Amino acid sequence: MAKTLARKIIEEHLVEGRCQPGEEIGLRIDQTLTQDATGTLAALEFEALGLERVRTEVSVSYVDHNILQSDFKNPDDHRFLRSIAARYGLWFSPPGNGICHQLHMLNFGRPGATLLGSDSHTPHGGGLGMLAMGAGGLDVAAAMAGQPFFLTYPKVLGVRLSGKLSPWVGAKDVILELLRRLSVKGGLGYVVEYHGPGVTGLSVLQRAAITNMGAELGATSSVFPSDEKTKAFLTAQGRADAWREMSADDGAVYDKLEEIDLAALEPLAACPSSPDAVRPVRELAEVAVEQVIVGSCGGGSYEDLMTIAMALKGKALAPGLNLSVNPGSRQALAQVTANGALLDMLEAGVRLHQAGCLGCIGMSQAPATGAASVRTFPRNFPGRSGTKDDRVYLTGPEVAAATALAGHLADPRQVFGPQEPIPPAPAVRPEALVAPPADGAGVAIVRGPNIAPFPQLPPLADDLVCTVALKVGDNITTDHIMPAGSKILPLRSNVPAISQFVFNAVDPDFPAKAQACAPAAVVGGDNYGQGSSREHAALAPRYLGVQVKLAKSFARIHKANLINFGVLPLVFADPADYDRLDEGQRIELRGVKRALLEGAENLTALVDGQPVELRLEASPRDRQILAAGGRLNHIKNAL
Amino acid sequence: MAKTLARKIIEEHLVEGRCQPGEEIGLRIDQTLTQDATGTLAALEFEALGLERVRTEVSVSYVDHNILQSDFKNPDDHRFLRSIAARYGLWFSPPGNGICHQLHMLNFGRPGATLLGSDSHTPHGGGLGMLAMGAGGLDVAAAMAGQPFFLTYPKVLGVRLSGKLSPWVGAKDVILELLRRLSVKGGLGYVVEYHGPGVTGLSVLQRAAITNMGAELGATSSVFPSDEKTKAFLTAQGRADAWREMSADDGAVYDKLEEIDLAALEPLAACPSSPDAVRPVRELAEVAVEQVIVGSCGGGSYEDLMTIAMALKGKALAPGLNLSVNPGSRQALAQVTANGALLDMLEAGVRLHQAGCLGCIGMSQAPATGAASVRTFPRNFPGRSGTKDDRVYLTGPEVAAATALAGHLADPRQVFGPQEPIPPAPAVRPEALVAPPADGAGVAIVRGPNIAPFPQLPPLADDLVCTVALKVGDNITTDHIMPAGSKILPLRSNVPAISQFVFNAVDPDFPAKAQACAPAAVVGGDNYGQGSSREHAALAPRYLGVQVKLAKSFARIHKANLINFGVLPLVFADPADYDRLDEGQRIELRGVKRALLEGAENLTALVDGQPVELRLEASPRDRQILAAGGRLNHIKNAL
Repeated sequence: MAKTLARKIIEEHLVEGRCQPGEEIGLRIDQTLTQDATGTLAALEFEALGLERVRTEVSVSYVDHNILQSDFKNPDDHRFLRSIAARYGLWFSPPGNGICHQLHMLNFGRPGATLLGSDSHTPHGGGLGMLAMGAGGLDVAAAMAGQPFFLTYPKVLGVRLSGKLSPWVGAKDVILELLRRLSVKGGLGYVVEYHGPGVTGLSVLQRAAITNMGAELGATSSVFPSDEKTKAFLTAQGRADAWREMSADDGAVYDKLEEIDLAALEPLAACPSSPDAVRPVRELAEVAVEQVIVGSCGGGSYEDLMTIAMALKGKALAPGLNLSVNPGSRQALAQVTANGALLDMLEAGVRLHQAGCLGCIGMSQAPATGAASVRTFPRNFPGRSGTKDDRVYLTGPEVAAATALAGHLADPRQVFGPQEPIPPAPAVRPEALVAPPADGAGVAIVRGPNIAPFPQLPPLADDLVCTVALKVGDNITTDHIMPAGSKILPLRSNVPAISQFVFNAVDPDFPAKAQACAPAAVVGGDNYGQGSSREHAALAPRYLGVQVKLAKSFARIHKANLINFGVLPLVFADPADYDRLDEGQRIELRGVKRALLEGAENLTALVDGQPVELRLEASPRDRQILAAGGRLNHIKNAL
Repeated sequence: MAKTLARKIIEEHLVEGRCQPGEEIGLRIDQTLTQDATGTLAALEFEALGLERVRTEVSVSYVDHNILQSDFKNPDDHRFLRSIAARYGLWFSPPGNGICHQLHMLNFGRPGATLLGSDSHTPHGGGLGMLAMGAGGLDVAAAMAGQPFFLTYPKVLGVRLSGKLSPWVGAKDVILELLRRLSVKGGLGYVVEYHGPGVTGLSVLQRAAITNMGAELGATSSVFPSDEKTKAFLTAQGRADAWREMSADDGAVYDKLEEIDLAALEPLAACPSSPDAVRPVRELAEVAVEQVIVGSCGGGSYEDLMTIAMALKGKALAPGLNLSVNPGSRQALAQVTANGALLDMLEAGVRLHQAGCLGCIGMSQAPATGAASVRTFPRNFPGRSGTKDDRVYLTGPEVAAATALAGHLADPRQVFGPQEPIPPAPAVRPEALVAPPADGAGVAIVRGPNIAPFPQLPPLADDLVCTVALKVGDNITTDHIMPAGSKILPLRSNVPAISQFVFNAVDPDFPAKAQACAPAAVVGGDNYGQGSSREHAALAPRYLGVQVKLAKSFARIHKANLINFGVLPLVFADPADYDRLDEGQRIELRGVKRALLEGAENLTALVDGQPVELRLEASPRDRQILAAGGRLNHIKNAL
């Protein structure tokens, strides 16, 4: 049988289950990555497992999120992570190196490997032909311990690319076109697999920009074939030996198919405030813009920076417009320094920032009140920029450059002449990755006063009577549940402190309410928990006493996180029952623990004495984890 | 009579008073600068005066302090300042250009001119032979309106330089040596004037690094002669016509004289937590260091960056050490980009940040708990880094480089071989300064919701009965009174909001106490109000109801700010009376307004019915301002 590339990689790593849609499978994980915002908790969790060393081919701890250091908490976290890495055999990437996904692909990525990362944009690595998936930090800690990663065997969404991108149309426009067609939940349950004759015309960095933002489709992962372009990329990185050719078999059948003629694409933008609110840029010329930012894991590569530099060389920004550039990696910054492009950017008026996530996670770079902001980032959820009622447009670097000159959203084909090809990246590798010592047993872990112990979570009760502390609508993101930003992110290694910000923008009284009525329930609509993979969106509510979440449907990573922290993710059998629930109502789930362990998929809750039918889609393993009160309890019980 | 250089510049600008020590003089101000943290209030004040255009040779509004943009407040301020600049005829420097003092000297500085800046490091311009002084924003707003700047005719402290700096000894070591000898109040009432055969061996950037940190001596200003080096510097900037030769007459007599043999200096460091706690670096080798930062107005010039780049080329940082570089200006960044030095820095492991003040004002870059931090900044007041109980050492870039390699405070003479001369700066001028339109009458001012109106301050009462809300010790800084940092600085254009942080680290209940017992008094020791020129340290307590400050002595700028905002700065006639006062005591000042307007220097307060003799050293003009309730009231009354 002709196989998809996704299936090939899965089969090579399958340690549990069968390759059947809907079945839970366990995959051997070759590589892991964590960033600091999710990584401190993952580190505490790994530590709690009592192993001497990570059990992966390579695990890397990156610092790229909390790099502002407004007080001791960020640098204490960096020091803690550095010591954990040395102690347990991880590579460490200090702040200033850049963003985990770009660094990982440049320095460790390997076609055909599995990569699990505690960041939702981990599919970035798919640009290199890896099966790279985002997950909660606890899943990653388990993978570091050599445990398989469990997921539902995904369907494969084939995207057949043909033709060649026109001048001033870029990789971002490919993924924006898919988001336009499929929406932010169009990829749920799928690996998106690119193939077809259009693939060869895309560079590895372009492919990665596409797989990166595939996270916004809600997809499990996205993957490109590994070909001669991949080989050349790895060779330039001095890692030719990591290359292998990988692609789908001829005639491979996809569960679903999209076709994109690259030549037919035009410059696109995702409008405020969702990555799938996509429109052609030519229709948006009336949008006056004050801020443009080029950066992020999905928009700050060498090629992104070169696109800006070459487009702006010798030109001047629109009056009053601020153009910020955040290099995605130290290497990309060094490359544009070496070839003179940085000087061109500075002379054009670019404001250069340190390499890292910065504004993409609301960590500085907020726009002014009412000002439209154009960003090459993968996300524009409301308020994520740090400014309420923000108006953030997502585009590729080509549109960003045109907009920076025009002062309004501008189609680069109308602003610029012919587009020159981007020159090959200079051979500069400013290494600042720290290898672990051969033996870390003697390394002392350095803990700052803000690093709180992992909280104790009790096992599930036999009877659960909980109260609805909050009811929300469709497409609630993990940013809604557990906001980020400069005030909150530093608290990620301190669950009691960060839990006081749960649902902060939705209902600032939520923490007090949840604690008052614990055990508590939250009621949501469709696609509950989309967006960032942050496990705090599950753990912090659980710490406050949330034991049940009822929704019309759940986003994949968030549902896994809920199970990992012992929160029941229940789906309405009849979505109309959503309307029957309201804040303050009591939900009785009698005998829930036994029913759960017996594998019951249908549960009946009593709400005001009336039955409401609920469904629990969970594997036998998930059910044991839920009964134990979370995965850490479950693993501990097994030891 | 042979004249000092300071006297020559003063005489050329004298519009009121006589050149007699102790007399109040009024000086015509040629140039002004504001930065954003003080500039928003200065802008509101200038606006309140109702003029159409600034009445100076040149006025510039720089954005360099509040550049993190955690929410809408910073970018709203930037937009407000940009619109104010266009409306009233100021140049505007957007965020990313770098630090006001470096930019001003590079682009506008002129030997022999007077410069008034709402930032305490304004004396930076003295490196170019200007009389450059820090002042409150209100003084600067008045100067923008063409009003003279009033000050006590300063004494002149001559510093005679001879010899030549040894390799790996730099400009910072010159000013650290002076701070070691004279302390943070040694310059009170003086202009520090450098002269002698050692001057010619110092570059203009070195001279500016010295005059910049002269602010830490408490001096009114610091000034170097303008010579052939100055001419060459201005010529390289394309501004040869701004040059004129200026120096003291042969045989000029100084009120006080220090002699420094440059050849006898060695690498020095100011130890935690005062710029005058100076020791030789060779005695500090036991201090393990985790963080090194090269940057700030006084330590981020082209030559500072080159010193680091040349010292680190081809070398690797000490394990676990983070070396951050904050370019002082876009030009300096472009220069090291153009000549390859930036690439050398990146390859050595430098973490490059945006150009601006950043960590020097506690705006990000906090060190970890208990970690020693070495910085080329001019200040290390306790907690200013953002981390409580911090341990910040101030050094030149030579020591910073040696420390970054060694991992502990290190004498560069022991770490490095012979020092190569710094190559001339590449001729790169990436202009991003915005010139004002010829006519700004049509420009609309853009106000964000955080920009609050200037508060109404009532005139002084005839009888003042106030209560001591707080008693503090010696050397209280304006950082103690009105803290900075990422949480507080964005509130500078909102006096009601920022006032809630007055004395936050000293007594968090102070705002409530002061408001409860208003009119309130604060009792201080020697050198009250040293450090930063921030006028909020006078205005915000006044807004809370503080009407009187009693101290053993006041720092110059803070005393002027107190008068400008209608707070009585009273000095104990007998310093021992400081011990008789305590929190909660009532101070009666009967008939104080009349006494003040009659010119009484001695005032008798009743404390618990017992007399305490106080002195008010204030000019007739100051007395009228105090009676009016502040300078803005005073100017308004006159109109």
